[in-house]
Amino acid sequence: MENVFADRISYVPRSFIREILKVTADPSIISFAGGLPNRDLFPLRELKAAANTVLDESGREALQYSSSEGDLELRNWIADRYKKKNKFTIHPKNILITSGSQQGLDLLGKTFLNEGDNVIIEEPGYLGAIQAFSLYKPTFFPISLDADGIKTDKLKQVLLNHDIKLFYCVPNFQNPSGISYSEKKRQEVAELLKEKNTILIEDDPYGELRFLGKDRTSFYNIIPNNTVLLGSFSKIVAPSFRIGWIVAKDEIMDKLIIAKQASDLHTNYFGQKIILQYMKDNDIDEHIDKIKKAYSGQRNAMVAAIQKHFPQGINYTEPEGGMFLWITLTEGLSALKLFEKAIRQKVAFVPGDPFYVDKKDVNTLRLNFSSVDEETIRIGIKKLGEVLKNY
Amino acid sequence: MENVFADRISYVPRSFIREILKVTADPSIISFAGGLPNRDLFPLRELKAAANTVLDESGREALQYSSSEGDLELRNWIADRYKKKNKFTIHPKNILITSGSQQGLDLLGKTFLNEGDNVIIEEPGYLGAIQAFSLYKPTFFPISLDADGIKTDKLKQVLLNHDIKLFYCVPNFQNPSGISYSEKKRQEVAELLKEKNTILIEDDPYGELRFLGKDRTSFYNIIPNNTVLLGSFSKIVAPSFRIGWIVAKDEIMDKLIIAKQASDLHTNYFGQKIILQYMKDNDIDEHIDKIKKAYSGQRNAMVAAIQKHFPQGINYTEPEGGMFLWITLTEGLSALKLFEKAIRQKVAFVPGDPFYVDKKDVNTLRLNFSSVDEETIRIGIKKLGEVLKNY
Repeated sequence: MENVFADRISYVPRSFIREILKVTADPSIISFAGGLPNRDLFPLRELKAAANTVLDESGREALQYSSSEGDLELRNWIADRYKKKNKFTIHPKNILITSGSQQGLDLLGKTFLNEGDNVIIEEPGYLGAIQAFSLYKPTFFPISLDADGIKTDKLKQVLLNHDIKLFYCVPNFQNPSGISYSEKKRQEVAELLKEKNTILIEDDPYGELRFLGKDRTSFYNIIPNNTVLLGSFSKIVAPSFRIGWIVAKDEIMDKLIIAKQASDLHTNYFGQKIILQYMKDNDIDEHIDKIKKAYSGQRNAMVAAIQKHFPQGINYTEPEGGMFLWITLTEGLSALKLFEKAIRQKVAFVPGDPFYVDKKDVNTLRLNFSSVDEETIRIGIKKLGEVLKNY
Repeated sequence: MENVFADRISYVPRSFIREILKVTADPSIISFAGGLPNRDLFPLRELKAAANTVLDESGREALQYSSSEGDLELRNWIADRYKKKNKFTIHPKNILITSGSQQGLDLLGKTFLNEGDNVIIEEPGYLGAIQAFSLYKPTFFPISLDADGIKTDKLKQVLLNHDIKLFYCVPNFQNPSGISYSEKKRQEVAELLKEKNTILIEDDPYGELRFLGKDRTSFYNIIPNNTVLLGSFSKIVAPSFRIGWIVAKDEIMDKLIIAKQASDLHTNYFGQKIILQYMKDNDIDEHIDKIKKAYSGQRNAMVAAIQKHFPQGINYTEPEGGMFLWITLTEGLSALKLFEKAIRQKVAFVPGDPFYVDKKDVNTLRLNFSSVDEETIRIGIKKLGEVLKNY
């Protein structure tokens, strides 16, 4: 019955990571493959209190159908947070609550992409975005990253030669590379985009998790007319609620709400109410500081262990925040083959392949440091160093 | 910037009901326009206990990312329920948890529909399905309903003359009409479909809410190879969690999981765990009986009031379950115009228009009886009867 399916579904890469996570479910394996926040840092007690407050104070409302836009008070909270943190003013009507940032990507694909439309994506790029957009059969233009963000000479050239509808980027502590755009790079990118019709999708799930250096300017600050901004509570509160949001101007928001309603009516409302209550009753900055302190220690442990145990000629990024670090092996080596060897030594990572739209058997790989404790990181990276030396 | 959007988004009808619900938010209006379950029946105390148990017993797991397929124990519960209620055996691997049934419709559109593919839909048909499928730009073939289900002579003719990819139906207490397919009609439909490649989407959010007559055979019982079955906890527990499911055979499920992952990674997991815990700790049948008893009373109050207060020549359905009743005015009358008059008398309903793909200014309308108490139903229907008499 293969022919009964829509063409689009065959364009979506299977989730390689899902397959890998199955292999690494074995608890004897030290896994740097996941992309999970550290569950020990979830504010469990506080969320339990918040859930009880919601059910006591507005239980029947919290259990009923709700609006497609999302809870107004929660959208107000998000607007206030941007005002405080990023110094820009957003009206809550320009915020749409989504079922995680992943749904934000799907809604943007639905709203913007005709078959064959051109989409710039970072190389390596976020796998979830590649999957979400692939369903709408765009033409991808991957542009590689320097240590301070996307290669602007290449970006300029692509923008000059092609009509680009979307430019998707994760400017803070990118998944998978851990790279952040410098202020200079942000200004350059903004300069290239500001006269264009291209929409920049600024996906920022990790922006609050900066543990080194100073916060950078959001593209929404520089070129608000070209920018759609995505945010999420998954990394600063807890992911299981699947609550993220999109910031977009009126005419885009109109379409996004239509797409949202057709996609799932609205995001689970009980979860929205719990997260809001949690933030009303607690100091979110204090909680985020705790996460940043932990991740900073884990990141430092990983960088130190790499310096100590990895052979010469292997490059690694030094992220200033977020959850990931990116390894580039000596040219010609295969991260997939390394994975096979590593798994036999009970250590796992994600080979780079799924983060590329048109490259196979690459020499890059992603390491996650947020979900493994420092001691285990040292043991795991040492093991991986040995596998590398024997490769 | 209109030209920057995808073509598909202009194919989706705006939600008329959203606009109507805004008008009817005025608390002085008696509204039969909503499609809400009765919030007084939500098992608030029990859900609170369940939420606390989940957080106490597996809190960190319940707050973490989870699998795209959905919680295995919940899928087992659903499979067991079908076995008990419908006498068919489903492997939990053939059940996918979705963010409400609405997402099930979107995932099916994503998975099956190329532009221009043919989709049979009931007339009147469920608005949410029209919206979800419209995004994938199919050609709709609306087929009208008799009191015992879809017109099979018309169905036969359409199946003979066209290659139909999907046939979407709500065979139990359809939204909007309240109509159910008779056993005979189900067998006839199954007979027409069984040699075809057409997929029947059996959307069954109300199936458990039968308060008159005997349960009918699911299409999944008769033609499992042609049927994809959708279910939901929204009407039997609470809608705010947005938890539904799709039952499909292996090769379809493979594609649906890819689409699911690209759409939102997974359905909110805390909500899944709460619903499961609630059902483990409570007698769901007892709870459903309570809902059925209440809705039966509300439905009877509405039918009695219609008989008493509506003028001659107005037809109404007599649903055996669910939440809706359907009115057909004398030919030539406009439900939209009636709506304008009714709203001035502080009573509201949904004019039929949004339930048709190719008709405007129809003489039909939907009344909801689940979210209005019996006394208010009597007052509201009496008012509506007066408006009708003056029309």
